[in-house]
Amino acid sequence: MRVTQSLFRTQRSDPGEAETPSHRLLLKAGMVQQVAAGIYSYGPLAQRSLAKIQTIIREEMDAAGGLEVKLPALQPRELWQTSGRDQAFGPDMLRLQDRRGREMVMAPTHEETVTLLARQFIQSYRDLPRILYQIQTKFRDEPRPRAGLIRVREFDMKDAYSFDADEASLERTYQRMVQAYLNIFGRCRLPVVQVEADSGAIGGKDSHEFILPTPVGEDVMLQCPGCGYAANVERAVAQKPTPTESQGEPLPLEEVHTPNTTTIEAVADYLRIPTSKTLKAVFYWVDGHMVFATVRGDLTINEIKLKRALNAQELRPATDAEVAGAGLVAGYASPIGLTSVRTVADDSVQTGSNFVVGANKPQFHLRNANYPRDFQVDLLADIAAAQEGHLCVHCGAPLRSERGIEVGHVFKLGTFFSEILGLTYLGAQGTPQPSIMGCYGIGVGRLLAASIEQHHDERGMCLPPAVAPYQVYLAALNVENPAVVQAATDVYARLTRAGAQVLFDDRSESAGVKLNDADLMGFPVRVVVSPRTLRSEAVEVKARTDSEATTPPIEEATAAVQAILER
Amino acid sequence: MRVTQSLFRTQRSDPGEAETPSHRLLLKAGMVQQVAAGIYSYGPLAQRSLAKIQTIIREEMDAAGGLEVKLPALQPRELWQTSGRDQAFGPDMLRLQDRRGREMVMAPTHEETVTLLARQFIQSYRDLPRILYQIQTKFRDEPRPRAGLIRVREFDMKDAYSFDADEASLERTYQRMVQAYLNIFGRCRLPVVQVEADSGAIGGKDSHEFILPTPVGEDVMLQCPGCGYAANVERAVAQKPTPTESQGEPLPLEEVHTPNTTTIEAVADYLRIPTSKTLKAVFYWVDGHMVFATVRGDLTINEIKLKRALNAQELRPATDAEVAGAGLVAGYASPIGLTSVRTVADDSVQTGSNFVVGANKPQFHLRNANYPRDFQVDLLADIAAAQEGHLCVHCGAPLRSERGIEVGHVFKLGTFFSEILGLTYLGAQGTPQPSIMGCYGIGVGRLLAASIEQHHDERGMCLPPAVAPYQVYLAALNVENPAVVQAATDVYARLTRAGAQVLFDDRSESAGVKLNDADLMGFPVRVVVSPRTLRSEAVEVKARTDSEATTPPIEEATAAVQAILER
Repeated sequence: MRVTQSLFRTQRSDPGEAETPSHRLLLKAGMVQQVAAGIYSYGPLAQRSLAKIQTIIREEMDAAGGLEVKLPALQPRELWQTSGRDQAFGPDMLRLQDRRGREMVMAPTHEETVTLLARQFIQSYRDLPRILYQIQTKFRDEPRPRAGLIRVREFDMKDAYSFDADEASLERTYQRMVQAYLNIFGRCRLPVVQVEADSGAIGGKDSHEFILPTPVGEDVMLQCPGCGYAANVERAVAQKPTPTESQGEPLPLEEVHTPNTTTIEAVADYLRIPTSKTLKAVFYWVDGHMVFATVRGDLTINEIKLKRALNAQELRPATDAEVAGAGLVAGYASPIGLTSVRTVADDSVQTGSNFVVGANKPQFHLRNANYPRDFQVDLLADIAAAQEGHLCVHCGAPLRSERGIEVGHVFKLGTFFSEILGLTYLGAQGTPQPSIMGCYGIGVGRLLAASIEQHHDERGMCLPPAVAPYQVYLAALNVENPAVVQAATDVYARLTRAGAQVLFDDRSESAGVKLNDADLMGFPVRVVVSPRTLRSEAVEVKARTDSEATTPPIEEATAAVQAILER
Repeated sequence: MRVTQSLFRTQRSDPGEAETPSHRLLLKAGMVQQVAAGIYSYGPLAQRSLAKIQTIIREEMDAAGGLEVKLPALQPRELWQTSGRDQAFGPDMLRLQDRRGREMVMAPTHEETVTLLARQFIQSYRDLPRILYQIQTKFRDEPRPRAGLIRVREFDMKDAYSFDADEASLERTYQRMVQAYLNIFGRCRLPVVQVEADSGAIGGKDSHEFILPTPVGEDVMLQCPGCGYAANVERAVAQKPTPTESQGEPLPLEEVHTPNTTTIEAVADYLRIPTSKTLKAVFYWVDGHMVFATVRGDLTINEIKLKRALNAQELRPATDAEVAGAGLVAGYASPIGLTSVRTVADDSVQTGSNFVVGANKPQFHLRNANYPRDFQVDLLADIAAAQEGHLCVHCGAPLRSERGIEVGHVFKLGTFFSEILGLTYLGAQGTPQPSIMGCYGIGVGRLLAASIEQHHDERGMCLPPAVAPYQVYLAALNVENPAVVQAATDVYARLTRAGAQVLFDDRSESAGVKLNDADLMGFPVRVVVSPRTLRSEAVEVKARTDSEATTPPIEEATAAVQAILER
C-alpha cells in the first residue's frame, strides 16, 4: 500500500486526553478516532491489525476443534430474565424497546443464545464434546470507559463456549482452550500470567484470567515467587498474618471512652495500639438488605469475596441514611450484641484475642473483645483482601503484587445455563442430563492495546509482525529524485512479490517526518531508499528494535527483511 | 470436517413458518435459528458461507482501491440529529439511553461516522479520491421482518463510502464500484439486473440497485426489452397511456348525483365510463400537514415519487379523522375549489379532457373537469406508478414487470454529509470545498439467501462453489464396513490435501438419510464411497446439478471433483 493512496495522517504533538501509552500512540498514529466515551472508529491501519489478530484467534480456535458460529447482538430481554442475568448485569447492560414496545438488550455476552443454538444440535452423548466460538461485537455500558481500547463500551470479542458430558471431559476441553490461549498470546508476543480469577456476573466455578503485567493495567494480581501460585486480587487467598501483639489470654470486656475516633486509624492512635488489635466494621447494602461485615483492623474487606460468600446479586457500601435507618452507629459499631442485621466476619477475627471494637454507642469502644466468647456471626469466611507480603497458602513464600491488563478469561460454567434453558443430552444409559459448559473470551481490540503497552518505546510502537498493520515501512527519501522513486518502487515490488506486507511512504515529505512516522508506527522493519543509499546501490534495512541498520544491495533487501521478520 | 465432529442436524419435515425457498432450506438444513422476529443465530455451516462471501467482497473492494475500516454500531443520537436523519429514519432506527441518560442509537448505516473519520485524514485535493469500506453489523427495526435472511433486523453489511473532488471523479469511482459489484455477483453466480433506484432515507442523487429476479422478491422492477432501460418501480418512469375516450373538446362542468360511489371503480361503473375518464383523489399526511394528491383514475399514486416531489421527510396516508378535520369529503373530493390544503396532481391530468371528479360534497360528482381550466394545483409532477405495458420513455417499447430481491445498492450522495459535518478539502487553487460522496451497500446474509433462491431445486440447495459452506459432500455409506471407512478416509485425506473444502459424512446413518442430506445441503460435488463402489475400487462422483454420476477409480477422484468445481 502506498501512503499516498491510503488514509494516513499522524499527529505531531501528543494527544492531551491520552491515559496510557497505547491510548496515546493509537491516537497519535491516527489509528483510532473517538466517537463517544468508550466508542471508537478504527482507521485502515487499526483495522489491519485487528484483522490479523482475528486470523490468529481463528486459526487457534479451529486447531482446538472450535466451530465458528455467529449469534445476534440484539436479543429479547426476556431471555436474560429467564437466566436471571438481566438483574445481575444491572446498568452495565444496554436495554431498549423495539418499535412494537418489546423489551430488548444489546448483549454483553452470549451464554443464553449459544445454549439455545447448541440445544438444537446436541441431543446425545455422541454429540459431545463441542466447542462453538464467534467473533462478535459486545456492548457493555462500562461506568468508566478508559485508556483508549483497554476499556470500551463496544468491542469485538472472540467468545467460545464448550459443551461436555462430564467434569473430566470439561477439564480436558478447558485445558485445550487454555493452551489455545497461550498459543494466541505467544504469537502476539504477550508474556501473560495465568491467574486464578473471580467469575463475576457470568457465574460459574473455576475461572482463570490471562494478565499482561504492566503498570497501566487496572487489574492487580498476586503472585508467589516460591510455587508459582498466581491470582487476581479479587480472588487471591493468602495466610493472614498473626501479629504477636494480638495474642494472649482473653481478658474481661471493658468500656473505654474514645471521643471523635470514628476510623480505625483514629482509635488505634488514641489508644496507642496497632490497628491489628482492632476489628473494623463496614456496612453493605446487599440485595436490598443491610449486612454488617467485620475484619481485623489491619486488613481490608474484599467486596468480591464478600459478594461470593453471600451468594449475592448486588452489593454496594451502605449509605449513611441506610446505616442510621438500621440503628447502627457509624464509627462505633461492633458485632457485640448486634441482632438486627445479618453479620459476616472475616476469619481473621480468630487470629487473635482482646480486640478493640465499637461499643455500639457514640464515643465509646470496648476493649478485650474475643470471638466467639463475646460475639457470634451469621457467616464466618475469608472476606479479606490478600496483600503484597502476605504469605502463600501453598508454600509460605511472601506474595508479590503486580498490576496488569486482563487479556483473556476462561470459565467453567457448570450446568447453570444448560439447566435453565433445557440443553440436555441422552447419556449412554439413556438418561437425560444437562451438558456441562465452559466459556472463554478474548477482546480483540484490547489485545491490540495490550500489545502496544508491551511493545513500545519513547519514539513509538515496536509491534511484532503478527500484530503490526504492515511488516515493513518502506520510506523513499527525496521523492523529487527520479532515481530514488525508481529504486524504491523496485524494492516495493520485490518485497510485495515475496509476500511481505509493505507500507510504502511515497509522500513528498522531509526525511525527518518520514523517519519519525516510521518510528511512531513501529512496524518491525524499516527500509529506507535515499540518494545516499543509492550511491552504493544499496538500501538501509533496520529492525525497529535495533539501534543499528544494515545496508544490503537492492537485490538482497528482501532477504534482509525476511531475516528480521523471522527472528 | 467430519460430520460427527461438527454441528449438523437436518430436519426431516419442512418448517411450517418458512415463507420462501431460501427460508425453508436454511431452517431445514439447520443453518440458522430464529432468536426473535428478524434476528437469527447462524450455525457453523451458515457462518462458513457468510465468511466465504465476505472474503469475495473484501477481495473485490480491495481490488477497487477500497480501504477497510470499522465504525461503531452504538452512536450518539446527537450525530443523527445534526444530519437530520434521526427524524428521517423514524421508527426504523433503534434508540436507547446509556447509563448516564445520554441518547444513543444503534446505527442503521454509517454516513455520519465515516464522514467524521474521513475528515481527520482528507485535507487536500491530493488526498482524494478515497474509498472506505467496512463489513459491520447494521440494526434496522423493520416493520415486517420476513423470509428468513431476506429482511432482518440485525445483519452484516458491507458498506463503502467514496470521497471525490468533483463530479467527474465521482462518476469514475461510481463506475468502478458498479464493476466491483458486478464482479461480486458474478462470482456468486447471481444474474442480477442493474436498475435505477430511489435513494430513500439515505438521501442523494443518482442511485442504482442490483436486483436478482425471483418471484419471491419484494422489489418490483420494470424493464424495457427494447433499449434495456430498467428501474425499480419506486423510481420507474414511463409514457402515460392517452386513452382515446379521454380526448375531446372541453365541455361545461356539470354536477351529477352519484349515490354510494366512494371508489373510482364504483363511480366509473355507476356512470358507465372507463376509470381513465376519472380523476382519483388521495389524501396524505406529509410532515405534519394534509396534502391532496390527484391522478387519472386508471393509474395509481407512487408514494415514493410523491414524497420525493414534495421533498418530504415523512409521508403516510391520512387517517379518516385527519381527512374530516381538514373539511374534505372522502370519496367525493376533487381539486376544484379546494384552497384549504396543499394540492399535487400527476401530470396525467393533462393527458385528457372532461374528467369525472368529486364535487367536494357527499353523493355528488362533477362531469367535464378540465385542467387547468377548472382547477390549478400547487405542484404538477410525475407521481404515478409506472406499470407493466406502459411504454418506455426512451424507445417506446412496452415495459415488463418482474419481482426480485435487491442484493446491492449504490448511491451518489453529493455533498450533503460533507457540508453538514465539515468535510472540506483545499482545492488546487487553495479554496476549501466539500468532498463529493458516494455510498455502496451489500447485505452479506441477504446475498446468501438470494443465492439459495437462485440455486435450488425440489430436493434442496444447489450452491455454487463460491457460496457453498463446503465444496464437497463426501458420504461413506455403511460405516460398519471397515473397508468403506478406510477408503472414505483415504479419499477425505486426498481431497483435503488437494485444497478442497470437504464435509465428510461419517455418521452411522442409512444411505437414504445421507444422500437426502447431501441433496438438501447442495454442495457442488457429492462423492460416495460404498461397498458397491469399492467392488470396482472406485468412488461415485456427481455434480449436485447433474443427474448422472461418474465412477472414477479412487486415485482419480480428486481430479474428477476438481473438474466439476472448475466448470
